[in-house]
Amino acid sequence: MSLFDDKKGMQIALNQAKKSFAEGGIPIGGCLIQSDGTLLSSGHNQRVQKGSAILHGEMSVLENAGRLPATTYRDCTMYTTLSPCSMCTGAILLYGIKRVVVGENETFMGGESLLKQHGVEVVNLNDEGCKEILQKFIEEKPQCWDEDIGV
Amino acid sequence: MSLFDDKKGMQIALNQAKKSFAEGGIPIGGCLIQSDGTLLSSGHNQRVQKGSAILHGEMSVLENAGRLPATTYRDCTMYTTLSPCSMCTGAILLYGIKRVVVGENETFMGGESLLKQHGVEVVNLNDEGCKEILQKFIEEKPQCWDEDIGV
Repeated sequence: MSLFDDKKGMQIALNQAKKSFAEGGIPIGGCLIQSDGTLLSSGHNQRVQKGSAILHGEMSVLENAGRLPATTYRDCTMYTTLSPCSMCTGAILLYGIKRVVVGENETFMGGESLLKQHGVEVVNLNDEGCKEILQKFIEEKPQCWDEDIGV
Repeated sequence: MSLFDDKKGMQIALNQAKKSFAEGGIPIGGCLIQSDGTLLSSGHNQRVQKGSAILHGEMSVLENAGRLPATTYRDCTMYTTLSPCSMCTGAILLYGIKRVVVGENETFMGGESLLKQHGVEVVNLNDEGCKEILQKFIEEKPQCWDEDIGV
């Protein structure tokens, strides 16, 4: 996908983050898009909304996509407003997703080096909108954020 | 925990695997036990039962335990009938679980080396019951198994 398309993908992810924020939840969102531009699923962190320890943004995206064959995952880009934590990194590796576009990795640096070691292309858009909304949440609810990253 | 206690923990995990098998699902189960022996949660793979791409055995265990502070996870052992895949490995690392007891790693070798690199103690019980039930499932439904490990 072109940079233009990546920005469109990130907009879908950021809209999910905004939806979560409006619900009082952690504002991290994502989406899964096939190489032909088909949107397979989108989602956001559900720690607050569903009391979930595993529904990070990327995990919600995978769950919302349902059961898929390996060939489909391999044709997809995962968009996520934040660099993926070790759990989400592991899920991306499990399913052989070949490309990950992150909104930013300044607030939190996830498993990008492990992804790259396994041949996954990682693109960082360094998006101010993704940073702003998460940093606002962390200032307001630091304990909830710490819980989400196991600190 | 002693080897005796580890066998008790694995029995809970294996009972979960058997429950899943009886439901037509993938027979991988687990549980989370605190160092004082308190059982926090148990669970099993839910790919078939809930159409879930993320509820592997260990992930179900974490989800069923609900939201927990980091201090609680650090005091726990994760029991799982099968060596944890990269997603479940990443989740264990995210939450700082310090000890993982696997039923077996013959049918599938997961992220044990990554866990050890991060200082997690990994114990393999090489349990015949864990192997038998999963191998029976794989013989019967090889495509479902491939889907579960992203092949």
